Amino acid sequence: MDKILRINMGGPGGPEIKTEPLGDYAGLGGRAMTSAIVAKEVPPTCHPLSAANKLVIAPGMLSGTTAAMSGRISVGCKSPLTGGIKESNSGGQPSQMLARLGYAAIVIEGKPEADKLYKIIINKDGVKIEPADDLKMLGNYDTVAKMSQLYGNKVGCISIGPAGEMKLGAASIAFSDMEQRPTRHAGRGGVGAVMGSKGVKVIVVDDAGCSARQPKDPDKFRDANKAFVAGLRNHAVTGQGLPAYGTNVLTNVINEAGGYPTNNFSRGQFEGAAKISGEAQAELENSRGGEGSATHGCHRGCVIRCSGTFYDKNGNYLTKQPEYETVWAHGGNCGIDDLDAIAMLDRMDDDFGLDTIEMGATIAVAMEAGLAEFGDAEAAINLVKEVGKGTALGKILGSGAAVTGKVFGVERVPVVKGQSMPAYDPRAVQGIGVTYATTTMGADHTAGYAVATNILGVGGSVDPLKPEGQVELSRNLQIATAAIDSTGMCLFIAFAILDQAETFQALLDLISAFNGQELTADDVTNLGKSVLKREREFNAAAGFTNKDDRLPDYFKQEPLAPHNVTFAVSDEDLDNVFNF
Amino acid sequence: MDKILRINMGGPGGPEIKTEPLGDYAGLGGRAMTSAIVAKEVPPTCHPLSAANKLVIAPGMLSGTTAAMSGRISVGCKSPLTGGIKESNSGGQPSQMLARLGYAAIVIEGKPEADKLYKIIINKDGVKIEPADDLKMLGNYDTVAKMSQLYGNKVGCISIGPAGEMKLGAASIAFSDMEQRPTRHAGRGGVGAVMGSKGVKVIVVDDAGCSARQPKDPDKFRDANKAFVAGLRNHAVTGQGLPAYGTNVLTNVINEAGGYPTNNFSRGQFEGAAKISGEAQAELENSRGGEGSATHGCHRGCVIRCSGTFYDKNGNYLTKQPEYETVWAHGGNCGIDDLDAIAMLDRMDDDFGLDTIEMGATIAVAMEAGLAEFGDAEAAINLVKEVGKGTALGKILGSGAAVTGKVFGVERVPVVKGQSMPAYDPRAVQGIGVTYATTTMGADHTAGYAVATNILGVGGSVDPLKPEGQVELSRNLQIATAAIDSTGMCLFIAFAILDQAETFQALLDLISAFNGQELTADDVTNLGKSVLKREREFNAAAGFTNKDDRLPDYFKQEPLAPHNVTFAVSDEDLDNVFNF
Repeated sequence: MDKILRINMGGPGGPEIKTEPLGDYAGLGGRAMTSAIVAKEVPPTCHPLSAANKLVIAPGMLSGTTAAMSGRISVGCKSPLTGGIKESNSGGQPSQMLARLGYAAIVIEGKPEADKLYKIIINKDGVKIEPADDLKMLGNYDTVAKMSQLYGNKVGCISIGPAGEMKLGAASIAFSDMEQRPTRHAGRGGVGAVMGSKGVKVIVVDDAGCSARQPKDPDKFRDANKAFVAGLRNHAVTGQGLPAYGTNVLTNVINEAGGYPTNNFSRGQFEGAAKISGEAQAELENSRGGEGSATHGCHRGCVIRCSGTFYDKNGNYLTKQPEYETVWAHGGNCGIDDLDAIAMLDRMDDDFGLDTIEMGATIAVAMEAGLAEFGDAEAAINLVKEVGKGTALGKILGSGAAVTGKVFGVERVPVVKGQSMPAYDPRAVQGIGVTYATTTMGADHTAGYAVATNILGVGGSVDPLKPEGQVELSRNLQIATAAIDSTGMCLFIAFAILDQAETFQALLDLISAFNGQELTADDVTNLGKSVLKREREFNAAAGFTNKDDRLPDYFKQEPLAPHNVTFAVSDEDLDNVFNF
Repeated sequence: MDKILRINMGGPGGPEIKTEPLGDYAGLGGRAMTSAIVAKEVPPTCHPLSAANKLVIAPGMLSGTTAAMSGRISVGCKSPLTGGIKESNSGGQPSQMLARLGYAAIVIEGKPEADKLYKIIINKDGVKIEPADDLKMLGNYDTVAKMSQLYGNKVGCISIGPAGEMKLGAASIAFSDMEQRPTRHAGRGGVGAVMGSKGVKVIVVDDAGCSARQPKDPDKFRDANKAFVAGLRNHAVTGQGLPAYGTNVLTNVINEAGGYPTNNFSRGQFEGAAKISGEAQAELENSRGGEGSATHGCHRGCVIRCSGTFYDKNGNYLTKQPEYETVWAHGGNCGIDDLDAIAMLDRMDDDFGLDTIEMGATIAVAMEAGLAEFGDAEAAINLVKEVGKGTALGKILGSGAAVTGKVFGVERVPVVKGQSMPAYDPRAVQGIGVTYATTTMGADHTAGYAVATNILGVGGSVDPLKPEGQVELSRNLQIATAAIDSTGMCLFIAFAILDQAETFQALLDLISAFNGQELTADDVTNLGKSVLKREREFNAAAGFTNKDDRLPDYFKQEPLAPHNVTFAVSDEDLDNVFNF
């Protein structure tokens, strides 16, 4: 990882490829890398679809090594959805592959002539860019299948579906998984629209002939990795809950806590929760044979293996095991309790290249607008089909919940900075409300997962229904998360490292051994702080103020059943989150 | 004008009517009144369609008197289009009528149950509110016709069409004219959507039995009015240009100056300009008989009479004489050179209740997105028809240019603060660019009409193609305009009072004689400044920063033919506009 691949899609004679040394960006990875490049190189007030925006794809610091859990990748740009800086994080194979090929980042800049579409092929011999008009408006599944035919069944793909080509605000970027399926997504913030605006349909990554990145201190690295893996296996969440039921283990937990947003955030418990819970999902998947549930990592090197495979009624592959947030977004938030319908929606989102959270939130807003009844799964499927077809209605929905609310005159639209809230109601989980409100990313649970401490009892305990302690909790988690998102580690390691000091030490040792330094906890905190500060500065320069660090008024006014609570963290307290 | 009518549409038992003394708002009128009430009573971060927003309708300070030109009315609220404070100004009959009935403002607050629609009837005996479900989704023409049948052919109507009921961002509020037609509109900023969110279809105003408001010093008032009228008749613009050709006299002027935005602001001259100019329009209208062009005021008491009537090919009434901005928006900006098509679009906008500027700008963005060819008048008509039908496509377009650009992934969208630019390219008329960028209203020519000095040689002369002097010009005009918009006077008086000291003195004398004070020029300036400061404070509290006081980047990057200029006023200079 000693070079940056820089591609100018707007060169006078077509795309121009450059490979550069790391320069100022040396030592950075993942979110630290993407946010540094975006903050330094993208004009904060530019149009997100303009030539001035840049799409940055960066493996984490430890990606490409043999460290467990290190295969996450960051995508950065100015977001078409929020208008602010964006880091969207994904699993899949390309992170490890790009890292092994030596690329610390791909920076795609400029803009080709309208309607030109390209593919980029990266292997140990270099980089090629070729016209790809034959891929126009293909779904991610067909796109990856074509790449597999052309380049072999070992390559990794980074691709967009029709949503990205249409430059929709909910468009994702797909990263292919171990089965070469486009099931892992940098979903949030419309990063797929930026890739679409650059005219890039797919990046094919082939690391044949490359080997794992070598640590400076191999023995220490190996020992640290062992301790790290042992720690993950030891913790109840990463060792038992997630492997057994996947992320969807949360449905019953959050629903019982009264924080499960139902029917467009109108109450905190869903009567159909048990039917779409992780337990029900596992039972259903097991009954259909195949691999069953929860046996699967999203990338090589994963030891938590919270993913799985969803087969349809006939035992045919339909999609990966839908994640908790997807099951909620297309399920409870729309009043839908049918796992097959939810899995179909997950498949369509993955194929069209759409963020499942944004799409579920959007369908619920459309239901509130009267376009369909809550609970009508067939109507929900038909609405998402419209997006794939690119109809006017589809383009509204594909632009996300904020635009859909505007077009249909809906007042109750659960967004912050234009991005939909995920699967935790901020009234019943006030810590996550602080994160939604204040993160640089727009409403985002992964930016500071206060649910862990508010509900799951991880990293201490803070009453989820009260404002006290939430700011400090969210602040510390946001700092830690910004650091973890820079390592290439899966965020789920946080459960173990928050509760087990020796597992956190093992992570420090892993990084230290790889780089031949002595990393301290303070170094990690400082890294997280520096990433957040840079992102905040970009957003301020783009025009964001503390007025953007707020939940919509109705969360402060409408009590949420069953606890009948409103969001009670004061504006003054929210303004203190970034006082560090 | 000694009372405020306050209607809470969200009362537990239905709408509640209250009449209040003026209190803190005594002495205010028009924009000073609407902005004072909105700034004091509306939470700046509220959702514009929520119960917390208020719709304020206020006649000007001199409305209801016998002063010439005093029949303008202001509509204020938090704008659904810009998210900031809004004052949208209209002609028509209701201003004089409300003033004679004694109402300095109507404040509509709260929100009824969904799908409830009401009409409000105001006469000398008081105020009634009645269900009006029979008017649902009627156009403004049919709505006013029904009110005429019910309440007589002398009443004034303030109404919304289907666009307002659908709560679209481009929805206007119509004010009926002397012929009881809904042709004058508070067009900008989506004020019709706020009226729609309050469940108010139409306000019927009947001033039968009321007489003109009496000045404190009748002799001085009469003399001042005479001098004022003489001054208006003496000035070339208000005495000749506007009466002869209406506002559309500007088409040839602005086109020759190279500042006529053509095909979605892609060049500054339109090859078909002569065919849609005021001169061509007058000839066409005269050839069709009837009243011909330019014989008409938009309200009783107008002596400029820049309006007229447009008859179709068969000699039947189609619409009022389309204004310059409308002819541009639906004409040159869409490459359309057919006056009959433009008049049809004007009629449809008036009937559906849509801002013609926003709609023309939106259709041009849709054309840039490939939904139709530039110049295709039939396609433009069909697109606006979609809005009236309330299809998904129609709702996108009716939400305005910014949303349309987002949904269709268009980068070149000529908006500031979410509101479309009017009919002057800010590259070739840099003073109006300063106004577009910095006014509290979103891109708006009427907020500080620097075109007067940049192009028309009124109020001095400042080179339109250079940045020098534009900030001071725009600042002074914005201050003066805020004051004029508070008097109830038509903004066109500015041409005469800028150039003729004695006409400005006559205006001061008119107000002084009415109130029994001695008003000075400084008082007027201070009034304007206080209005602007209050509006700026509201916008800042709503989250606006100097980053919102900018034109889209492409105006600084793409040179405009034929002068090949870019917008060159620096950000630092823009930040100085409100240094007073």
